[in-house]
Amino acid sequence: MIGPWAAAARQPKQRNNMNQQATLDSPRTKAAQSASSPLVIEATRGDMVESRHLVSFAVSDPTGRIVLHGGDVEAQIYARSAIKPLQALALVESGAAEAFELGDAEIALACASHNAEPRHVETVLAWLARIGCSAEDLECGPQMPSRETDQIGLIRSGGKAGPEHNNCSGKHSGFLSVARHLGHPTKGYIRYDHPVQQRILGILETMTGLDLSGAPRGVDGCGIPVIGMPLGNLALAMARLAEPVDQPEPRQAACARIRAAMAAEPFMVAGTHRFCTRVMEATAGRALVKGGAEGVYCGIVPEQGLGIALKAADGAGRAASAAMGWILTRLEAITVTEAERLASALTPPIRNRAGLEVGCVRPAGATSP
Amino acid sequence: MIGPWAAAARQPKQRNNMNQQATLDSPRTKAAQSASSPLVIEATRGDMVESRHLVSFAVSDPTGRIVLHGGDVEAQIYARSAIKPLQALALVESGAAEAFELGDAEIALACASHNAEPRHVETVLAWLARIGCSAEDLECGPQMPSRETDQIGLIRSGGKAGPEHNNCSGKHSGFLSVARHLGHPTKGYIRYDHPVQQRILGILETMTGLDLSGAPRGVDGCGIPVIGMPLGNLALAMARLAEPVDQPEPRQAACARIRAAMAAEPFMVAGTHRFCTRVMEATAGRALVKGGAEGVYCGIVPEQGLGIALKAADGAGRAASAAMGWILTRLEAITVTEAERLASALTPPIRNRAGLEVGCVRPAGATSP
Repeated sequence: MIGPWAAAARQPKQRNNMNQQATLDSPRTKAAQSASSPLVIEATRGDMVESRHLVSFAVSDPTGRIVLHGGDVEAQIYARSAIKPLQALALVESGAAEAFELGDAEIALACASHNAEPRHVETVLAWLARIGCSAEDLECGPQMPSRETDQIGLIRSGGKAGPEHNNCSGKHSGFLSVARHLGHPTKGYIRYDHPVQQRILGILETMTGLDLSGAPRGVDGCGIPVIGMPLGNLALAMARLAEPVDQPEPRQAACARIRAAMAAEPFMVAGTHRFCTRVMEATAGRALVKGGAEGVYCGIVPEQGLGIALKAADGAGRAASAAMGWILTRLEAITVTEAERLASALTPPIRNRAGLEVGCVRPAGATSP
Repeated sequence: MIGPWAAAARQPKQRNNMNQQATLDSPRTKAAQSASSPLVIEATRGDMVESRHLVSFAVSDPTGRIVLHGGDVEAQIYARSAIKPLQALALVESGAAEAFELGDAEIALACASHNAEPRHVETVLAWLARIGCSAEDLECGPQMPSRETDQIGLIRSGGKAGPEHNNCSGKHSGFLSVARHLGHPTKGYIRYDHPVQQRILGILETMTGLDLSGAPRGVDGCGIPVIGMPLGNLALAMARLAEPVDQPEPRQAACARIRAAMAAEPFMVAGTHRFCTRVMEATAGRALVKGGAEGVYCGIVPEQGLGIALKAADGAGRAASAAMGWILTRLEAITVTEAERLASALTPPIRNRAGLEVGCVRPAGATSP
């Protein structure tokens, strides 16, 4: 059981011999670390660097040419939640988004790992009602809201964590919408062999240029399948999301819809003080980014037609966002002025319990902010 | 301003040329990774290893001989909370513990990063009252209890996170006790130049065999100084805690008191389901262990006279505890039977939000449990 794009997905792989094709655009890399070395992100405290993270990254154009990279771009990774904007293509391409009159807020939520702030949760619940479902149909499991203030609000009101508070509840509402629209059963929509997940697998195959039928597989935090793929192919898929010139027209339109929704509703993609939201707001959508668990981050720079994928080898989220900030700054997708405004996101301070700044997270070689 | 042991601390360094002295006890290392390679801890998900951590470690005897190691034992690290059992020596040696009639529970709390479960918090508050202080004298900053159930209980009761809930509140109560007993001001007891911190610095110097007056320095999460030191010297200090044969008599007695308290009250050192508590309970105190932030773990095996120190380069706590489990198993401080009982601590499952086991954390080369 394979989605509609699966035949196209088995086209000759776009990134065969990518390592041989890989070149470094020299103006961009003049100050870079050695091409094959991972990016080092360090956590400082007082006089010392206390901890270090190694981050592999790839920046691809839509032909699969890697314009900037570090570390092992052929390493198999799980993209985790960083792949949500690609999964959301199914919501648009299937016609479900149009049929249920979903707006930017809902489509951004389908791409989101949200904080479960009130606006996130209310929008998810209203969306579920619109498709004739409820929180009980969500198979993502319960999760406390991210922010202490929302946790306290929930508990004080006598409520408890439900699946609607799960950071993936928007993505799952998208899956349910596709199932509803296409007449598939909603129960079991998270299973690998469910038509919704197979449709998404087909989309991932055309976007990455890979036959993923035999790829390594696991189960995500929210219960859906995760599929192993080389980091470079994930960057290619993101580049195609940025500039889907070689994709069928419906895919091109769906990519444009996803980009527009993320740019219009950055709060819905993450939430207050979150790196994703702050970067998309500060760049007015010039950079669209999405993080995932275990140190993954993806992004696109639509006006440059570039896709970005990165993974901190140790799975550290603080390293992934700092690396994404470094790459976007290198690509000038974050301007100098924007970087100043984003300083507390790009090189975040480490504070102690009393709120005192005692260190920071930064690319190695950078000076403290 | 230097504590009473400072003169002794400036004794010839015990671990000069430690690398040259380092030998590997071959029966113990026959199955080990290359002597100079760090231990690799991996996080699996489904078919793949998803993330990897590199852990440097040193196991020392009280003469500074390194009997087992991996990675860079000369790397400067901050021991963070893993050093609390050494800091607690000041509480006993100063006479404060005796004067205030502190029991095993309080002394274990002085060594603790506790969960702020009710028994932890109640014991801290009663202790503070006994020395004429209150939670307002704690300078560690507020922190929510670790466990969701305790968070909910606190919020439902209309309370909020205070310094008494800070995981370091026992250690801070110990500092306040020393200040009270010796007639020092309590205000500012977290400052580097406060007599209590200087006394502790002197203790660390004699235990590590280092002059720490010029060592790298920073501020811990709870506001007290952190002092940079080579990993191997931290292992030596722990070995001396295990078997302080070359230390003055009051130090020997204080070390015995700390060991006895940790062995008697493992719950007070951490709490429900915590690695420290589980290991000390399962081994009946044969192994005494204490973790710290940013991937540090220390431990002692008193009956072997060994001290252990390790640091995950990236700061990951999940790697640090898994590495400690691996080392203790290698040293046979955890028996085969105990290892089976501790399986969920030694190679902890990774679960998704719905509770399904989707991977595990384990030493590289180990098979899934």
